[in-house]
Amino acid sequence: MRHRVIITLLAAVLLVAPAIAQTKKLGPLTIKEQGSFFVGGENKTIGQVGVPPGTGEITVNQMYVQYQIPMKGDQHVPVVMVHGCCLSSKTWETTPDGRIGWSEYFVRKDRPVYLADQVSRARSGFDATSLLDIRRGTLAPDKMPMILDATHQVGWTVFRFGPKYGEVFPDEQFPMQAVDEFYKQMIPDLNSTLGPQPRATWQQMAALGVKLNGAILMGHSESGFFPEQAALVNPAGIKGMISIEMPCDPGMTDAQIAQLAKIPTLVMFGDHLGDVQGSIANWAQSFASCNTFVDRMKKAGGDAEMMHLPALGIKGNSHMLMQDKNSDQLADLVISWIDKHVEKRKGGVK
Amino acid sequence: MRHRVIITLLAAVLLVAPAIAQTKKLGPLTIKEQGSFFVGGENKTIGQVGVPPGTGEITVNQMYVQYQIPMKGDQHVPVVMVHGCCLSSKTWETTPDGRIGWSEYFVRKDRPVYLADQVSRARSGFDATSLLDIRRGTLAPDKMPMILDATHQVGWTVFRFGPKYGEVFPDEQFPMQAVDEFYKQMIPDLNSTLGPQPRATWQQMAALGVKLNGAILMGHSESGFFPEQAALVNPAGIKGMISIEMPCDPGMTDAQIAQLAKIPTLVMFGDHLGDVQGSIANWAQSFASCNTFVDRMKKAGGDAEMMHLPALGIKGNSHMLMQDKNSDQLADLVISWIDKHVEKRKGGVK
Repeated sequence: MRHRVIITLLAAVLLVAPAIAQTKKLGPLTIKEQGSFFVGGENKTIGQVGVPPGTGEITVNQMYVQYQIPMKGDQHVPVVMVHGCCLSSKTWETTPDGRIGWSEYFVRKDRPVYLADQVSRARSGFDATSLLDIRRGTLAPDKMPMILDATHQVGWTVFRFGPKYGEVFPDEQFPMQAVDEFYKQMIPDLNSTLGPQPRATWQQMAALGVKLNGAILMGHSESGFFPEQAALVNPAGIKGMISIEMPCDPGMTDAQIAQLAKIPTLVMFGDHLGDVQGSIANWAQSFASCNTFVDRMKKAGGDAEMMHLPALGIKGNSHMLMQDKNSDQLADLVISWIDKHVEKRKGGVK
Repeated sequence: MRHRVIITLLAAVLLVAPAIAQTKKLGPLTIKEQGSFFVGGENKTIGQVGVPPGTGEITVNQMYVQYQIPMKGDQHVPVVMVHGCCLSSKTWETTPDGRIGWSEYFVRKDRPVYLADQVSRARSGFDATSLLDIRRGTLAPDKMPMILDATHQVGWTVFRFGPKYGEVFPDEQFPMQAVDEFYKQMIPDLNSTLGPQPRATWQQMAALGVKLNGAILMGHSESGFFPEQAALVNPAGIKGMISIEMPCDPGMTDAQIAQLAKIPTLVMFGDHLGDVQGSIANWAQSFASCNTFVDRMKKAGGDAEMMHLPALGIKGNSHMLMQDKNSDQLADLVISWIDKHVEKRKGGVK
């Protein structure tokens, strides 16, 4: 019994040791400025007298943004990070196993970082009027916007933790010992309240680029193609686009491709794209659609790159690659790309 | 025309000048450690085969917490801040008019700060199963949990910006020029999905105190009495309770009061408690109930204080006093109280 306790304690120490070691190694972080604000938002009149919430105005379509500017931040182009389906900006923060996420990593590499909760998610709030209408009987229940509520089983296969639920790829890079912490990040997705397209988020992302006087937009999964959609709304503030693991829209016209091709673009995919059974996402097909997109961008004279990690010899990355065990290494790849293609610096990461 | 443009520009400069001046004066901020994590959360089986989201497990009742520990943080007791109804942790961040909020102010005063999104709100997510059941017809629409969606009109009176919607108190401390930015913080409140009481949040707050090896819990409005409720769940990790503007539960038993009276307690109220017409909140009644609560705590031997700001000569504070123009001054009052009553230091704020 005592041996078992000691072994358990040893295992616990070994498991948490890497996170502690990294925190100590990293040392203090000095911030020039930090805070949060909203982009966009408009008034909407709701309700009936005597029925909660009563007649009046609410604000909808605003996008919550949280930021940190490091001391040398004005030497670099700000990076806007937008999370995917059924997730929030937590995506970019402390990883499920307790390491720093991409947001702090980029800040420590002197980049101003802006985390946006998609319109209708998390601290951005959502437009609840259709739900309130159903509750008081003025809208049919089957007209309720579809709330996406990803189960652990759906997450396991969509995020490519293994070939099927409960099985892990031998070279899996996701920190599976902390998968229960990851499940806590999965929250209901109310994008369907925005209409057939999450256009409000595209608009606010474009507006944020303008507000920042130029920014790199980064999207992941559900939001992976949002940088491009934002650039079609208004390219004025978009200095670079980073699209991670999503279907690329095959319906882009040549005129749209020509507009996008003016902006340096990085598309990034991990491993095991065709190795999962029974997933509701088809990553092999998404990868193919994005290869076509990158080819069209190049033919239109654009600076576009498909970064397929296995082609670089980097194996086992999941769909949540910004949280994978090699997340620092992948962040360095992205920062090097920014230096070379957006900021036109020599030598990559300093 | 030109004169008008110049006057408008001058007005704009004067309006933004205080925020800019403060940022410059404050200077860089050095953080020892920062990040985010979840407290609690349990599995729940949902759904039917073939109907989205399908059969499987989701995680519910987790509480998202974001934190910063300053360099001298280990010399002080951590402060956990929990927002009120129809709001998120944005409450404690950058104010609507662009000044730093209490979270950064406390960090700059060497306090570790933990911001929690209430269970069922913002980045904590919510349990959408009853909504999904209504959509597929297995639950009646009138059984939908009541979603609280505060209108601007409700906010104006509940938050005491003036005697009625559209009118501002002459001495109002809320930065009314930025009220539209405040409205963007108001998001749907899904606490009713937690059952008759938001007990899950009380449990996670108590657990967070234990995890931090002792913390001061601070609540506001809807969550104002949550520190006390958390202390009734488990007082082990609660070193102080700060309750801002809420009704105090008149149903506490003597045994409960005796348990709470072991923990130093500050209750705080602003101005104009009885000066608003047609509000759904009765702040004068709430104030009376909390005076009774503080008296009972004192009679039970507790260190409890009612800090009514007008009694200190501080006038015009709204319900959102942590965002009012004198928010720094009010933060200093709270920090002095912590020093004297929780940390037992002499001299208050250093």
